[in-house]
Amino acid sequence: MTVETTSAAELDAKDPLASLRGRFSLPGSVIYLDGNSLGALPVGLAERLDRVIRHEWGNRLIRSWNEANWYELPLRVGDRIAPLLGVGAGEVVVGDSTSVSLFRVLAAAAQLRPDRQVVVTERGNFPTDLYILDGLRQLMPHLEVRFWNESEPLVNSLRGAAVLMLTHVDYRTGRIRDMRSLSAAAHEAGALTVWDLSHSTGILDLDIDRDGADFAVGCGYKYLNGGPGAPSFTWVAPALVDVASQPLSGWFGHKDPFAFVPGFEAASGIQRFLTGTQQVLSLASLDEALNVWEDVSMHDVRKKSIAQTERFIAGVERECDGRGLALLSPRNSEVRGGQVSFEHEEGYRIMQALISRGVIGDFRAPNVLRFGFSPLYVSFADIDRAVDILAEIMRSESWKQPQFAAKQTVT
Amino acid sequence: MTVETTSAAELDAKDPLASLRGRFSLPGSVIYLDGNSLGALPVGLAERLDRVIRHEWGNRLIRSWNEANWYELPLRVGDRIAPLLGVGAGEVVVGDSTSVSLFRVLAAAAQLRPDRQVVVTERGNFPTDLYILDGLRQLMPHLEVRFWNESEPLVNSLRGAAVLMLTHVDYRTGRIRDMRSLSAAAHEAGALTVWDLSHSTGILDLDIDRDGADFAVGCGYKYLNGGPGAPSFTWVAPALVDVASQPLSGWFGHKDPFAFVPGFEAASGIQRFLTGTQQVLSLASLDEALNVWEDVSMHDVRKKSIAQTERFIAGVERECDGRGLALLSPRNSEVRGGQVSFEHEEGYRIMQALISRGVIGDFRAPNVLRFGFSPLYVSFADIDRAVDILAEIMRSESWKQPQFAAKQTVT
Repeated sequence: MTVETTSAAELDAKDPLASLRGRFSLPGSVIYLDGNSLGALPVGLAERLDRVIRHEWGNRLIRSWNEANWYELPLRVGDRIAPLLGVGAGEVVVGDSTSVSLFRVLAAAAQLRPDRQVVVTERGNFPTDLYILDGLRQLMPHLEVRFWNESEPLVNSLRGAAVLMLTHVDYRTGRIRDMRSLSAAAHEAGALTVWDLSHSTGILDLDIDRDGADFAVGCGYKYLNGGPGAPSFTWVAPALVDVASQPLSGWFGHKDPFAFVPGFEAASGIQRFLTGTQQVLSLASLDEALNVWEDVSMHDVRKKSIAQTERFIAGVERECDGRGLALLSPRNSEVRGGQVSFEHEEGYRIMQALISRGVIGDFRAPNVLRFGFSPLYVSFADIDRAVDILAEIMRSESWKQPQFAAKQTVT
Repeated sequence: MTVETTSAAELDAKDPLASLRGRFSLPGSVIYLDGNSLGALPVGLAERLDRVIRHEWGNRLIRSWNEANWYELPLRVGDRIAPLLGVGAGEVVVGDSTSVSLFRVLAAAAQLRPDRQVVVTERGNFPTDLYILDGLRQLMPHLEVRFWNESEPLVNSLRGAAVLMLTHVDYRTGRIRDMRSLSAAAHEAGALTVWDLSHSTGILDLDIDRDGADFAVGCGYKYLNGGPGAPSFTWVAPALVDVASQPLSGWFGHKDPFAFVPGFEAASGIQRFLTGTQQVLSLASLDEALNVWEDVSMHDVRKKSIAQTERFIAGVERECDGRGLALLSPRNSEVRGGQVSFEHEEGYRIMQALISRGVIGDFRAPNVLRFGFSPLYVSFADIDRAVDILAEIMRSESWKQPQFAAKQTVT
């Protein structure tokens, strides 16, 4: 019996992660397939923030920097993300946006290869990653960008490269890059690797140190459910961290932040990848959201994720056959992450029609409908229902109604 | 009748800002003199965050980026800070830590003077500002740091300078630098000015464009009461903003963030000084905190601030005469900001004794007791009571008790 022929009820009954849905506060009226963009609200998080605001800030005031360990949050929250990456305690730090974190590690990597000038990446990388590389080149104008054309082996692009900067799971298609073989090719060529794990953390079963990452950053607000704009994380290979220098060298990365000495001396370990004072409310929100992961096996998450994306693809192709929806994501589940994308020239209007019916995915210009499946709170019944609603919209062509034509942006 | 001879009750009765104390939730047991480090909790803020979390995030999910205008928060909150700086709407943007914001403007300023290599600053500048300059020099190694020795006119240090980077109000002493004359000297020498307004925003009556700032950044969690680690703000002179490039060029600084095109093109105006996705919970907290400023005159704030610091200095010098407390802050109120610092070789223990009695100030190594007076919620009665408690501690030498000797850090 395959995932396509078993009933959703049976799959949900056997799902070892099914009870986790109760740890999230989701409105009953929606099927939420956008957790790859903004994760759902964990139960208890609003109460935690209320305590942080009223008690830690309001009553204890400045004393909470010590009493409530606000100082240690960036490393403590990092320690909670570490198992999801397959790395050790003390190796991950949390703070600032993913773009800022990427700037730090990219600059650090380039500085470790001073005699080389090429950064290899993909034209289809997440745009802000390319923009940050452009920005770094304002200050390191010797750096050249070389785009890997995937019709050729990566090794052809790596000659003389300082850094290979890739995103592990493509934001549009959900395609997984093979971290292990690509990192090995980079190392073979003498380059360092920078991986963006924004769409892989909390959905793939990662082991990034084994797989050859040298530097990695990722997002706190997607599958980690840290809340809108939650801070990002940074990991640096233990063998490199103490020889790496990053240019956003603010006081929280100093070895003795409260000595107030005029010269910068980097802290040892991953703390040196911090910059200024962290946004405590957003950081506490991410900390609270990570509670749900405590007893979760990433093996189970990945297994369920594959079953869910398989079922969605099979359902859409069966029920919407001939309606112009073309699968953009890889068909092979081994190289597909937690999201499924279909192309349709009227994708924007179809997604608006879906949202109006309570099925929330998102749209990416010019023509991509994107559906993310967070195994912590999406059930197999949700998937069947989403397929049914999409099929009904396609059959009835209700997306042609004028209210679905207005322009909207989603992140 | 001077501020020293009028009763606190009378001063409080006449205070046009007195009613604002009701807009803050302060524990009855403390006299809070550390609002220059972490501002107090505004009434209603916990409720606002609860709505953001439960409704905007929990119920509306990804849709809130549009519906709740999360996208526009950085500029909208900036517009609310603009009047406190004396600048116009659309000129200020909010996001990231002060250190990150400083990196952006410092890099932008240096890039606007490509033929010059000197950044002039002070050795006593806030340490993280110097650390960020050190960090920028990793990537712009041609930059030299030149410390202005204030026993000489600034102009002697400005020869060939690209940038003058100063903090407006000194974090240790509360001394105000004369923005107008120092900026004029910098401009005369062909340099651009970068001002850190962390200890001046919300306490001084600023007019930074008139006074010659080219770039300015400041803190959201001190006198602005935005909450622990609240994001910082950035202002760039309108004449420069569209020719300035900053290297942390992430998607939120792009002219069309959701076109997902591979090349970076900066947004026009101050939006180009954004980088990645902002931490919405912390940003909403700052937004809410700014409500209290809506009908506040900065002229009144400054007038009350001067009266309060005068009264505190006079009280301490009268009541603690001969106890070894030496005024570190300027005696002339025209060049003194909202805080008063005293030196004492046992400053750490004295501050611990004060805190144990409910008077919360802070300590800065090696020997500085620092007291900040936020005119929005500190009364003249608070000041007299703080003086009385300090006098009692000094008279009885209760700070010698062993429990006050433990090491503590405060931010």
